Amino acid sequence: MLKDTYCGDLRAADAGRTVRLAGWVHRRRDHGGLIFIDLRDSHGIVQIVLSPDQAEAHEAAHRARTEWVLAIEGEVRLRSDATINPNIPTGEVEVVPAKIEVLAEAQTPPFYINEPVEVDEQLRLRYRYLDLRRPEAGSIIRLRHEVVRYIRDFLSDRGFIEVETPTLIKSTPEGARDFLVPSRMRPGQFFALPQSPQILKELLMVAGVEKYFQLARCYRDEDFRANRVAEHTQLDLEMSFVDEEDVMGLVEELYTGIGQRFGGGRPLAGTPFPRLDYFDCMRRYGIDRPDLRYGLEFVDIADAVRRSEFKVFQDALANDGEIKAIRIPGQAGMTRREIDALTETARAGGAKGLAYIGFAGSELRSPIAKFLSESEVNAIRGIAGAADGDMVVIVADRPEVVAKSLYEVRDALGNSLGLKDPNQLSFAWVTGFPLLEWRPDEERWDATHNPFSGFREVDRPLLDTDPGRVIARQYDLTLNGAEVGGGSIRISNRADQERILGMMRHSPEQQRERFGVLLDALEFGAPPMGGAGLGIDRLMMSLVGTENIRDVIAFPKASSGTDPLMSAPSPVDDAQLKELGLRVIG
Amino acid sequence: MLKDTYCGDLRAADAGRTVRLAGWVHRRRDHGGLIFIDLRDSHGIVQIVLSPDQAEAHEAAHRARTEWVLAIEGEVRLRSDATINPNIPTGEVEVVPAKIEVLAEAQTPPFYINEPVEVDEQLRLRYRYLDLRRPEAGSIIRLRHEVVRYIRDFLSDRGFIEVETPTLIKSTPEGARDFLVPSRMRPGQFFALPQSPQILKELLMVAGVEKYFQLARCYRDEDFRANRVAEHTQLDLEMSFVDEEDVMGLVEELYTGIGQRFGGGRPLAGTPFPRLDYFDCMRRYGIDRPDLRYGLEFVDIADAVRRSEFKVFQDALANDGEIKAIRIPGQAGMTRREIDALTETARAGGAKGLAYIGFAGSELRSPIAKFLSESEVNAIRGIAGAADGDMVVIVADRPEVVAKSLYEVRDALGNSLGLKDPNQLSFAWVTGFPLLEWRPDEERWDATHNPFSGFREVDRPLLDTDPGRVIARQYDLTLNGAEVGGGSIRISNRADQERILGMMRHSPEQQRERFGVLLDALEFGAPPMGGAGLGIDRLMMSLVGTENIRDVIAFPKASSGTDPLMSAPSPVDDAQLKELGLRVIG
Repeated sequence: MLKDTYCGDLRAADAGRTVRLAGWVHRRRDHGGLIFIDLRDSHGIVQIVLSPDQAEAHEAAHRARTEWVLAIEGEVRLRSDATINPNIPTGEVEVVPAKIEVLAEAQTPPFYINEPVEVDEQLRLRYRYLDLRRPEAGSIIRLRHEVVRYIRDFLSDRGFIEVETPTLIKSTPEGARDFLVPSRMRPGQFFALPQSPQILKELLMVAGVEKYFQLARCYRDEDFRANRVAEHTQLDLEMSFVDEEDVMGLVEELYTGIGQRFGGGRPLAGTPFPRLDYFDCMRRYGIDRPDLRYGLEFVDIADAVRRSEFKVFQDALANDGEIKAIRIPGQAGMTRREIDALTETARAGGAKGLAYIGFAGSELRSPIAKFLSESEVNAIRGIAGAADGDMVVIVADRPEVVAKSLYEVRDALGNSLGLKDPNQLSFAWVTGFPLLEWRPDEERWDATHNPFSGFREVDRPLLDTDPGRVIARQYDLTLNGAEVGGGSIRISNRADQERILGMMRHSPEQQRERFGVLLDALEFGAPPMGGAGLGIDRLMMSLVGTENIRDVIAFPKASSGTDPLMSAPSPVDDAQLKELGLRVIG
Repeated sequence: MLKDTYCGDLRAADAGRTVRLAGWVHRRRDHGGLIFIDLRDSHGIVQIVLSPDQAEAHEAAHRARTEWVLAIEGEVRLRSDATINPNIPTGEVEVVPAKIEVLAEAQTPPFYINEPVEVDEQLRLRYRYLDLRRPEAGSIIRLRHEVVRYIRDFLSDRGFIEVETPTLIKSTPEGARDFLVPSRMRPGQFFALPQSPQILKELLMVAGVEKYFQLARCYRDEDFRANRVAEHTQLDLEMSFVDEEDVMGLVEELYTGIGQRFGGGRPLAGTPFPRLDYFDCMRRYGIDRPDLRYGLEFVDIADAVRRSEFKVFQDALANDGEIKAIRIPGQAGMTRREIDALTETARAGGAKGLAYIGFAGSELRSPIAKFLSESEVNAIRGIAGAADGDMVVIVADRPEVVAKSLYEVRDALGNSLGLKDPNQLSFAWVTGFPLLEWRPDEERWDATHNPFSGFREVDRPLLDTDPGRVIARQYDLTLNGAEVGGGSIRISNRADQERILGMMRHSPEQQRERFGVLLDALEFGAPPMGGAGLGIDRLMMSLVGTENIRDVIAFPKASSGTDPLMSAPSPVDDAQLKELGLRVIG
């Protein structure tokens, strides 16, 4: 190799060694006589010093510009005390080259690589190969490798085997849209890219694999939103002869290990992870993936105002609505502008408005206080537990509107009050989800998670009488308010699977056509099984503390779903389409 | 978990333990009174014994049939000496259950799982989840996990990082056909699935990653032949600041380790791996991936017959042809039928016939001897080194026909004479390939391997004068006559890359359109780089000794390219196609 040592690895103990280095010119200061070059490679940066008496090397260094590629042979020496740089690991040494070879020149990059400046994302993505040279960007890709390696080792050490499942599979109409792949051998027919290996991993359990995992590429042709990507990587795992506790316990041990090892010393808030019941979650946070790094839980103040003459409250209660509040400690003196912003947030969540009562000493700061009796106000204060100086914000509406709008208010408060501590990894499990939800427009039941999730045996009679109340054997893992994964104990017999699919209005023919392979397999001795799918991108985002999913992917698509690096998608030849039996239409 | 011990793990030392097992009924012998069940799980098989006095468990065992799923609680006990089964690792013990629970019943499988019988492949693939229960099939998938884990550890320990590159990329017209993926966001436009991450890994080198690898899913929409699959897994790696020796050395160390650890004790024939020159290979074996487990090298006998009056030889030499032979030791007495079969093989390779001379004592067994002088026969015998009892087979024709047909003859002899020792892993490197070959029909040069391969600096002047003689910095790895991988030191500057693409008749516009991202990247400081792509499927085939690629893939497509398990590809809704801006045409 052209190099025998990494720039970033040099330390005081290397003084006196002759080394061969190769890397990129990170910075260069040419004092006419002395030239300093910061040479960068994948391990870090070291200072190269040239004086004019090393004529040939000095000449090369004089010519060199930032981002040129150099090979250097030279001696490591200790810096004098005055020039030691305590900010970099190699700061005690410098390298005095005997020889410099220019391996490649470089055009001036379209943005600074050696300074952490704000760069337009589209430009960064178009030149992602330069963006990744920035130490902070490249280190995320290295960390991702380490995390994924840790996951693989953890599972392999516990007897799991990684099995590669096919990615040209059959299109099924479940969940998001499939990406399609036209077949040339069968023109007019299509493969699909998998949304997840769900059916295939169940088949592996039927095959007797018992403990499977895969870092699986999964595809969803969804409309793009922030942090949605067309292809993402999922830690997919499945186990036989297990119940919920086995899978959750394993995942929890894995994620605790990841947090401790790669969380940068951040404390793991709450191990074992808290377990939240879905309905309890919805009551307290209005969402099934609450951010537990802060409080601001909802309180139900309906009892305080049940006899109130305030019309907004009266109407809500008369229409089976709810009246819920959030106590915001010490915020009675919120500015008008802040209150308006919160009200807008509540409205964006569907509420007609946001009532509030600020308890500022003996004063009430509240436009609704005049409609309430003193005892009603006191009752609200009592239920909310509001102390002097606290603000209480209130929404009265249909339950789903209350949940959605107060969730948005709580989330906005988490941001504006700085409650989302980036130095905390706050995991939680959510369980107790309904198995099915009614789709009134389609007049059918639908799976809340996926049609293969099992249900509590004790709820079996409810399938006949009140299917919406059947509880799934589902568990979701949340981290800092994001869903980072989920899974379930599966249905493992044909009759139950057919029944659930039937309730979802798949006709027997459609079941055979879409899920036949699984239904057949369940008849040949399927073990009890369960597993999980856990998003690697989302996990990495939390570990590195970014809100931008593109930071944790080597070559991400833009938020539009297109690829500014490779300019994809693109048109193709008509001849190629003809082979596929396809034509582009208007 | 429902189990605390694997069936296959039980040993004499476990005697006396109470264990909970779960698995499948592999075999069942019901003697009315005593019932024996071989219970199978992912670790192996153990014998369960029931006597009628364990009433409840006995009853369950009586009902059970093969492939039912049972959970068993029982005590491990030593077998009596007479009943020890030395053929299985658990043969010294058996389990006496206190409790048996039937977890799932099973239909009778469509083929035997507990006996290694020949089953129609289409049926096996359709029920692959049952096929994988057969211990010999399932063990390959486990071995694959171990091999891939070894590879990942080997490279990670050496500072490589695994980077996931995107699989929805831009379609380029190089090599095989791309699979296309229609874009819904841009109707009428398409992504492509990657044939390999070649350009992306070069971008990673430009990005300063230095040592990259990936177990990468690669796609080729080729017409199906034996052992071609639409999606396959490639160990893809790339390094900066290296030359050929660095990459070949690393890969050789890796593959030697794999062979030693997973080769089942088979000796690695020749370490370090032999290095063969491409032209020498073609001369001696007529192919660039010779099977080195046996000899039968070609010898050039033209000098022996240069003045011969035998018309076949005269014509060949007059037309710049070759006359080459293979000496087959001890086969002078080959049967007529065997000779006819070899002749057919030579004809299938393009030869007009296969001449032969058998040296059987003082007799010559040869239809062509009458056209040759005694000194010519002696000269042939001398060059071929034929001893008494040897057969010499001869082809005279254009060089490419001689190579192809004699290769086929040598290969057939390897099979018919049993020379392909399945207990040998015979690796070799082939280097010295031409960079370019002329396509007379298209009147252009084409890359023999890929357009990004570098060339020997010493050959640079030949690019102007005789491009066909430029030698690529390419290296192919062969194993037992199959190509298992290859790679090169890449072109790492824009001017050279444009020049090669230009010789391949990509116009400047096409270069920008198809390879613009790479060409641009090469201007921003690209390091010297090289790497390899190594087929995992092919490696696994050699390790387990199968000729069928579908044996080493968990859920393979059939040889037709369709999926008999999931019934893919399949038609999709017109509505879905409309969203993609597509219509199926007649």
